[in-house]
Amino acid sequence: MSKGLPKRSEDYSQWYNELVKRADLAENSAVRGCMVIKPYGYSIWEKMQAELDRMFKETGHTNAYFPLFIPKSFLSKEASHVEGFAKECAVVTHYRLKNAEDGSGVIVDPDAKLEEELIVRPTSETVIWSTYKNWIQSYRDLPLLVNQWANVVRWEMRTRLFLRTAEFLWQEGHTAHATKEEAMDETVQMMNLYAQFAEEFMALPVVKGRKTENERFAGADETFCIEAMMQDGKALQAGTSHFLGQNFAKAFDVKFATKEGGLEFVWGTSWGVSTRLMGALIMAHSDDNGLVLPPKLAPIQVVIVPIYRAEEELNAISEKANEIMAALRKVGVSVKFDNRDTHKPGWKFAEYELKGVPLRIAIGPRDLENGTIELARRDTLTKSTFDLSSEPIEIMIPKLLEEIQDSIYQKALSFRKEKTTEVNSWDEFQEVLNDKAGFVSAHWDGTSETEDKIKELTKATIRCIPLDQKEEEGKCILTGKPSQGRVLFAKAY
Amino acid sequence: MSKGLPKRSEDYSQWYNELVKRADLAENSAVRGCMVIKPYGYSIWEKMQAELDRMFKETGHTNAYFPLFIPKSFLSKEASHVEGFAKECAVVTHYRLKNAEDGSGVIVDPDAKLEEELIVRPTSETVIWSTYKNWIQSYRDLPLLVNQWANVVRWEMRTRLFLRTAEFLWQEGHTAHATKEEAMDETVQMMNLYAQFAEEFMALPVVKGRKTENERFAGADETFCIEAMMQDGKALQAGTSHFLGQNFAKAFDVKFATKEGGLEFVWGTSWGVSTRLMGALIMAHSDDNGLVLPPKLAPIQVVIVPIYRAEEELNAISEKANEIMAALRKVGVSVKFDNRDTHKPGWKFAEYELKGVPLRIAIGPRDLENGTIELARRDTLTKSTFDLSSEPIEIMIPKLLEEIQDSIYQKALSFRKEKTTEVNSWDEFQEVLNDKAGFVSAHWDGTSETEDKIKELTKATIRCIPLDQKEEEGKCILTGKPSQGRVLFAKAY
Repeated sequence: MSKGLPKRSEDYSQWYNELVKRADLAENSAVRGCMVIKPYGYSIWEKMQAELDRMFKETGHTNAYFPLFIPKSFLSKEASHVEGFAKECAVVTHYRLKNAEDGSGVIVDPDAKLEEELIVRPTSETVIWSTYKNWIQSYRDLPLLVNQWANVVRWEMRTRLFLRTAEFLWQEGHTAHATKEEAMDETVQMMNLYAQFAEEFMALPVVKGRKTENERFAGADETFCIEAMMQDGKALQAGTSHFLGQNFAKAFDVKFATKEGGLEFVWGTSWGVSTRLMGALIMAHSDDNGLVLPPKLAPIQVVIVPIYRAEEELNAISEKANEIMAALRKVGVSVKFDNRDTHKPGWKFAEYELKGVPLRIAIGPRDLENGTIELARRDTLTKSTFDLSSEPIEIMIPKLLEEIQDSIYQKALSFRKEKTTEVNSWDEFQEVLNDKAGFVSAHWDGTSETEDKIKELTKATIRCIPLDQKEEEGKCILTGKPSQGRVLFAKAY
Repeated sequence: MSKGLPKRSEDYSQWYNELVKRADLAENSAVRGCMVIKPYGYSIWEKMQAELDRMFKETGHTNAYFPLFIPKSFLSKEASHVEGFAKECAVVTHYRLKNAEDGSGVIVDPDAKLEEELIVRPTSETVIWSTYKNWIQSYRDLPLLVNQWANVVRWEMRTRLFLRTAEFLWQEGHTAHATKEEAMDETVQMMNLYAQFAEEFMALPVVKGRKTENERFAGADETFCIEAMMQDGKALQAGTSHFLGQNFAKAFDVKFATKEGGLEFVWGTSWGVSTRLMGALIMAHSDDNGLVLPPKLAPIQVVIVPIYRAEEELNAISEKANEIMAALRKVGVSVKFDNRDTHKPGWKFAEYELKGVPLRIAIGPRDLENGTIELARRDTLTKSTFDLSSEPIEIMIPKLLEEIQDSIYQKALSFRKEKTTEVNSWDEFQEVLNDKAGFVSAHWDGTSETEDKIKELTKATIRCIPLDQKEEEGKCILTGKPSQGRVLFAKAY
């Protein structure tokens, strides 16, 4: 590595950008707003995918695949949906190139214009509900519990690696149900599943809540979300689950014969998380030395670095390292032995810190003599000596990895608690937002006008109406009008 | 099911189309040429993906993700590449819709025209080599062994579910090497890997070979392929591996510093298989009753159907079924117990035959008394009675599944042998193609003109120059000119 990362305290934004690039997670491509997810970054995403996919299947969902393209007319069938997505979409208008007659290269062939333009999917409700119309006739066809792993495109003007890109990868679940209650249960279940994934695997504490009408998905009757806090005190929406009511069923005329012999519109949900989670993972835990990865999502959980001068020393160390590797792999720990002679141990230490490998084992000749290894934890940057005779390594390391996983979560949780403030006046609200940032819990009069006004004045938005918020009478911080409970404000990514 | 499938012998093409739809594998979408892969079809694709992905990783490859869009100018940088793909590509020209002023709905916003048009990737060599330019500086950065799972779009005019669709799913490997030899070794390795996958998992025998210049990938110096035979005697190209020489390195100026201090262009390969494999799998093995799935790719390997009249009978049968399920799951067999009371056993039998479940177990009250089960093999449509005390079921079933896997492969292999004919004259060539179809092994003079002429006259193309073809002097079947070895002709999908 050439030089250190920018410090979080000095330029958080620059620190993030540099970290994403230097840790080989992603980079900007030649195509405006589209990123390249590099192998190391992609391997973390694959681990996220694997866990989420397992959780979806355990809750009865199956995967399928729907077209990349959406006919323009489909997008328009649900009024608020088209409002939400038409302004930033990639439009396919032609299906052929040809050689320019003046020899200047290839041009779009004007004779190959599509009769109807196609939109590259920004989300797939419309194309999926047009398909569901053929799949659903009777209550026996319900519920339909389908998920899709796919790429989507939203023509964002200001993009940022992982957090906001024109193309991103995601999963989108689309379910259909016979009753409103069942669809609502599914919506809540998936929000809970996302929260469980975030907390258990990403070590990321989240607040579960409902969105206000302003912040709802275009086409939903209700949007649930999980909101996380980043180290700069800004909020990041990490996943959403939408109760679609009968909106898309009505737009695409999807009805089912009920048990009782009636004919009713189907109830729907949709829910998704994206490569944005990579941004959340990086921003929530990493430090000025580089990535800090929770062991459950780390592509390499343990790295072994030999410390040696002479070739014979390396041979003896390799023997011990191979022994340790075999023992750890047997219990499912992913471990790498970096025996390259092209790089010095110090360089390797810095490299694996940058890459966020949770545990580093160093072995030198003295360790061999003493029957010890040196253990370094990435999360706390602490070192210790472990006596190999004190406990089998295949028992100690998995326990330690669990401890690290939990410790990263607890640290993020403490930070969030510290950065969550209850306020009761407008002055207090502004002061906290400016000085301390974080989540601000405050009363609000429930109107979109007030929400807009607060956003305009402070850039803070209502992240959610937390589900666990107790009922409490109070006065709106801006208008003084009565309120029945607090909501969570924050500046957000 | 309403009625039986069309028979293969009467209308092979219609049989295929109907089977794909009725077995819930895929269907056409509202978007011209784009398919919907239904949950059952997708679950087979997922099993293929999982095995291929494991094989790629075991040979040192890692996954990454590159942009969906390719700037028009990139496509033009490699001359033969643009020739091959420009005529059938989806072109993005705008990035926004807006409401029409006359209230007629949403229209493309003429003010949101892109400066440079973007092509939806038909394959990713160009965008990937433009990225590799930044990743590769020195021999230390090589080899670069990257794979991508993605969707691609080729604007095909005549489409067919799985076999030829405008959008399809695939994986594309793109590797970069320091030497020609290493790149060629990689090309051949991946062809071999594909052949191993086809034979071991798909139970599909394939011929490995080189493509003629006519049939080469646009931008490759050499294309290797695996060719399979379908039950109608037509060939299907099941996978390709391309030696790109330095073509893309030159087009995108990708050079590396050699160990010796020089500066040289990088050598490249690319290789891919797609959802087309689903078509091959279906066409190679299935019969007039429905799908025949090799056990290694079957989402459900064993189904248990209870045969009962009274409720008490079902209870006793369920107990036995649960016992069997637990024993089988423990050894990794995927098994489903279909205890629905809404469908009769006969209906279920037909349904699981249609879906290609390799083994069906039926249990009735008499089986309980006798300690037996009825076993039905999907591939041979044969039934037998198994005495549960004769051998533990968790040993018998995995053995039987292996036997089925092998038997499906052997059947396809025999069929291919039977349908492969050596001919030595033009009359014989035409006669075999018309009457018997299949692979025709014949001498050819090595020119593109003759190849084109034969295609024009017979619709047969050279599928490949088989790698295991022995040297043999002969005369071209069409021109009588001298030839050094036989090539494989066939009509193809």
